[in-house]
This record gives sequence, C-alpha cells and structure tokens, in this order.
Amino acid sequence: MPVKENPNYFSSNFNLGILGGGQLGKMMLYETRKFDIRTKVLDASSEAPSKIACNQFVQGDLMDYQTVLDFATDVDVLTIEIENVNVEALEKLEDQGKTVYPPTKALRIIQNKAKQKLFYVDNQIPTADFSRFAYKSEIKDSIENGGLQFPFIWKAAQFGYDGQGVKVVRKMEDLNALPPGECIAEEIIDFKNELAVIVCRSANGEIKTYPVVEMEFHPEANQVEYVICPARIDEKVAERAQEVALKVSEKIEHVGLLAVELFQTQTDEILVNEVAPRPHNSGHYSIEASYTNQFEQHIRAILNLPLGETKSKVAGIMVNLVGAEGHTGDVHYQNIEEILAMEGVTPHIYGKKQTRPFRKMGHVTIVNQDISKARQIAQQVKETIKVISK
Amino acid sequence: MPVKENPNYFSSNFNLGILGGGQLGKMMLYETRKFDIRTKVLDASSEAPSKIACNQFVQGDLMDYQTVLDFATDVDVLTIEIENVNVEALEKLEDQGKTVYPPTKALRIIQNKAKQKLFYVDNQIPTADFSRFAYKSEIKDSIENGGLQFPFIWKAAQFGYDGQGVKVVRKMEDLNALPPGECIAEEIIDFKNELAVIVCRSANGEIKTYPVVEMEFHPEANQVEYVICPARIDEKVAERAQEVALKVSEKIEHVGLLAVELFQTQTDEILVNEVAPRPHNSGHYSIEASYTNQFEQHIRAILNLPLGETKSKVAGIMVNLVGAEGHTGDVHYQNIEEILAMEGVTPHIYGKKQTRPFRKMGHVTIVNQDISKARQIAQQVKETIKVISK
Repeated sequence: MPVKENPNYFSSNFNLGILGGGQLGKMMLYETRKFDIRTKVLDASSEAPSKIACNQFVQGDLMDYQTVLDFATDVDVLTIEIENVNVEALEKLEDQGKTVYPPTKALRIIQNKAKQKLFYVDNQIPTADFSRFAYKSEIKDSIENGGLQFPFIWKAAQFGYDGQGVKVVRKMEDLNALPPGECIAEEIIDFKNELAVIVCRSANGEIKTYPVVEMEFHPEANQVEYVICPARIDEKVAERAQEVALKVSEKIEHVGLLAVELFQTQTDEILVNEVAPRPHNSGHYSIEASYTNQFEQHIRAILNLPLGETKSKVAGIMVNLVGAEGHTGDVHYQNIEEILAMEGVTPHIYGKKQTRPFRKMGHVTIVNQDISKARQIAQQVKETIKVISK
Repeated sequence: MPVKENPNYFSSNFNLGILGGGQLGKMMLYETRKFDIRTKVLDASSEAPSKIACNQFVQGDLMDYQTVLDFATDVDVLTIEIENVNVEALEKLEDQGKTVYPPTKALRIIQNKAKQKLFYVDNQIPTADFSRFAYKSEIKDSIENGGLQFPFIWKAAQFGYDGQGVKVVRKMEDLNALPPGECIAEEIIDFKNELAVIVCRSANGEIKTYPVVEMEFHPEANQVEYVICPARIDEKVAERAQEVALKVSEKIEHVGLLAVELFQTQTDEILVNEVAPRPHNSGHYSIEASYTNQFEQHIRAILNLPLGETKSKVAGIMVNLVGAEGHTGDVHYQNIEEILAMEGVTPHIYGKKQTRPFRKMGHVTIVNQDISKARQIAQQVKETIKVISK
C-alpha cells in the first residue's frame, strides 16, 4: 500500500465511524477518548453500551443497506465491532472511495463460514475437514449415501454469533432440529487445547502478534471458563500457532485486528477454527496485562498509526460474566464487592440493564506476576460473583 | 464510621455527581464507564473534557452556591475533581444528609493555604516555616520591622491553581506586583527532591498508599519535567515520606484520594508542601503502571468499595504535555506519531481544542520493566512531541 501522510486525528474534526455499539465498541471508545478522536456509532438499540462516550450516536439497523450508507456519509474512516453488518453497503462505500477497515474483501470471506473454510483450503491453511451444503436436506442425502457420518459439528454459514449457529449433531433428531439453509458439517476435533492469537495489521502493512492465549474449559460443561495469557504450552507449539495465525493474516489482508482461534490437536497439530476481524473476547485480558491493549491497537492499525508493543506487563486471566440460568430481568452483580477485594481483580460491567441466561454481561480480568497465583484467584472470582436478577 | 451495606452501584440508578469537568474528571469517567456507574457532571465550559462519557452534563458555575445546590438534588454521592468549588453549598448539602466526599471539613482546610499550613502546625506535621498575612500591606510592615527577609515564597491563601497564586519574592518590586488579600510568606526550601505520595482512604476508613513518586526538575527552567514511579531514593527516606503522608491523611480525615506533595531537604528531612483531596497529576502514571489506577481508586474509596492494590506492574514515568510558548489557537500535536512508535509510550490527549502557552493539554506515560530505560525513552518523548497551534 502507498505510504501517504495521515490526517490529524487528535482533537481534530476527523470522524471515525463504528458499526455496532456493543461492549466491544464501548471498550474501543475508552481509547478514542484517550486520544480525543471524534467518533460516530451506529447501533439498533437505544440502550447500546456505546451510546455515551461517542461524539454522535445513531440508532439504526446494521443490516440495512441504506442505513449504513447514510450513516457513513460524514465519517472519514469506517470500522466495525461486529461482523453482522450490511457488506453490500460497505462495498458501495469502498467503490465511492471511503476507507473501510476491515476491507470488505476480508469481511466477505469471514462473514460466511463456508467461504471462510474454503479460503483456508485454497491457501493451504490447516483446518478441520468439512463439507459444505447449500441446504440442510443435502446433509441427509450425504448421510444416507455414506458420504458423512455422525457425529459432526453443524455450523450455519451466516450470522452465527456467541455460539449460536453451531451445534454438535449426534443423530438424525439433532439434524431435524436445525434450521435450513447454507451450512457446513465439520469433523469433531479431539483437541488438547483451544488457543487464540490476535494479529494486528496496519493500513501500511505493519504486522504484530499478541502472545498465544489458552482457553481453559470447564471439565463437565463444555464452556470456556478462563482465557489465560500466556498459554501454558510448549514454546514450539506457541511458535507454530503464531506462524499459522500470521499466514491467515497475510492471506486474508485484513486491516485492524484479526483474532485467530486455533485447535492444538492431540498430536500437536495446529488447526484454524475460525477468525474475527476485530477486537475479540480472547483479547480482553490485554486492557490490564498488555503494554498496548487490543482496542487501542485496533485504532492504531485502522488509522495507520505505529502499532504498539504487544507483550505483557504481567500474566492475565479473563473470566466472562454471563447471566446465570433461571435469572431474567434487572441485572444484579451478586458479591461483586467480594471480588473487588481480591488481588489484581478488575471487573468490567458492559452496561446491559437486563440479564438473561448466558447473556454476556461483563468480564473480569485477574493480573499477577505469577500465572498460577492468577489462576487461583480467577477460580475464586468464578466461584464468588454471580450475575442474577433481583 | 459505621459499616452499613452499600447500595447497588453497578448498572443501577445510583447517581454519582462530579463537580468539575476537566481532564481529571474525564479520566475518572473511564472508570465509571468500566463499572457502569451513572454520573452527572457540572462544569462552566460547554467544551469541558468530561462533557461526553458522563450520563448527564450540566453547564454551570462551580463557585455559585445555588448552582451547586440545584445540581446535587438528584445525586446520591457528590465528589470533586477540582478544589475551587462553593464549599458553603457543600456544607449545606452535608447538613441535609447528602454524602459529600471529600468531606467539607477537609476541603475547608485544604482550600485555604493559610488554614492548611496552620493545620500542619497544629498537628505537628513537618512543613516549611511561614507567616500568614491578612493583607499584602502587612508583609511590607513585617519586612520593614525585620520580621521577614527576602527572598521568600508568596502564596495566595485562596484559589491558586497550576502554579498561579505562587511567586518567589526577591525584592520589593516583586512584592508590589502581587495581588492584595490573604496570603502566606513561606521560607524557600533548598530541597534535594520533590516527592509525592497518594493516600487513598475509603468511607469506612480503609487506608492504602501508593509508592513514593519523584518529580524531576529541568536543570535550568525550574519546571517539573518528569514524574517518576518509584522515586529513586533511599528506602528509609521513602518510608519516612509514607509515614508523613499517612499522618496527614489520618489527621485531615479525607475520603477518596489525598495527594501529598513533599520536600526531601538536603538533610533528608521530609516536609509537607501541599495536598490535594482528589486524583492528581503525580498519579497519572498509575493508569498504565499500577494494579489499580488512581481514578478507579478514588471511585472505590468514595463509594466505600474495597480499595485496590496500589503497587506497580512496571516502572512508570509521566511527562506533561503543555502548550508551547508562542503558540495560541487550534491545537496540533506535532510528532505525536513518532512517540507512538516508541516502546511503552501512551499519550493522553485531554481534548482541549485551543492551546496557549503552558496550558495543560495532555500527558504521556512511559512504562518499562527497567526504570532507567523508561527514563531514556521519556527524554526522547520530551524532545520529540510539541504542542503547537497550526
């Protein structure tokens, strides 16, 4: 990309547009405030977490072509905090010469999980075997003629978010329960670890990676309990994970952050699970633990500023705060004062007034010089705080 | 103080009032957003840095009795980010049962520098010798009858801020140039170091101190160039500084932060210079370097939440960004991209659109495992970035 001088971003009239006003946008706004960069946010909800702290909030549908076009008229650079946006509108804006990061080319590949998988195959990027189906009915045919066996993982091609659109299919009844439409059937990977690497890439091509993080799962419930930085894995495996993440980044040519979720197999192969072209849950630890947090880094990358140091000051562990089962209504963070008394503990409350089972309401970061100490405190946090209704 | 249960602060209708909407308030709002605590801000300027990111902004005069009373009607706890507020209104609110932190008793002592000095004397807290004068004319009398000799430091009793209201008086002409009114004449301390200790004290009396920081002055211009944490001083001197700061905190019975500025004399005595009952310039390094930054700590303290860890993750150095001489008008941060490329460097831009000579426009934090490396980078930062008009 040609190197041209950047505009003046700081306390100027430069206007950054952000599609999506959820918690990722909210945390991005801490950084635009720190740099005093003007922002304009689009979100469908009048109670979006990003509604305040931006300079201008517009309520509207991210999936509506005209809404996105109109929103962008007076922004200088447009970015996203969620992939489920109207890409046709973004392509139109790119055609008009508007700067859109991540580029729609990358967004197109990522937004459709079938396209994303084909992209890995085309670029010799290791990923779990899969078959693509235009309709669910084709899956049945494939099973009947022996092309596909239970169990497998079904993923909707479009608009899966926070675990929606992903199901383990063990028998025909599971299959029947699924929605129709384009999807993939993916082999179930017996992984040793689930890892993630955040790659940042600036408009002029400068690239850096964050340390490999590890998702620790609950032994019974198959849910990520802790995101741990650095991952407690062999140096060789970590290097391999970084290599694979960098290859995805280079091939997909994103600008901004790319969160690459990976499997470490029982034989220490590294397979790409999926990617997100934005700040990511697996990078929340960076606010307290890293020299440059992922939100500031995304801003630096899309504005073509020098990328910041990605290493950590201390070990960091992140625990998601999700709504407790059986609780729906006005949120109450039970025992939050107890965790505030624990060493190196920082709760982040996203600002959603209503809780419901499994809704992402916030997260807690635990930092410590000693990662095993951090891990112990993280467990105390997990056992203490509860997101309920009252 | 009696221990009673706190209200629910997080994503609730609890409303925190903040008097003052400058950069200290702006940085405090990062923390109220993080915890999703409702805020209401009062400031005279329609372009106050805290105008966005609070839930409600009211434009009005902090020194006006009725304005402050009216502002506070619907807030649950009231705090400040600047001392120059109408204390009579705060006393009235306290009488009405409103929670005001810092308490007006402490604010009264601090707001008037003559009162503040008498408070140190009454409580056997070491401080530079001084005389108090109701009118400037009394200084002349004192000089003529030999009670006072040149040179000395003149300080206005009321409403000095950012070096205003403080002058070195070497001869009669200097004295004539000063405004009339209540003031003190203080002996000039030949200090080895200027130090500061931030003490946090919660409503229920929990107390913690931050590490001692050191102000490094420019060899020629008598201006603080760097705030360095930890101070590069003997352990014994650091312990003494902490003791003195704690004594001031206990005697003044503040709630929230108390920044205690100290002199280390040539004979390693520790003398109190002055104090501020709020987040302070000497604590800005804590955003990047400390386990709990001073703004979050102030919020924890005034809301009677457990205090956070005050130790540092890494060494931190802070450089103020002040308007360059000869530049007045629309601000431009010259070479800011160059400092963004330096290791562990974070600029904070306060959001003031207009620069003028010596106006505080922002600050830069440099963090590093190695304090001498941080000091080198801080010097590069200082020599690179310039706040000019364009």
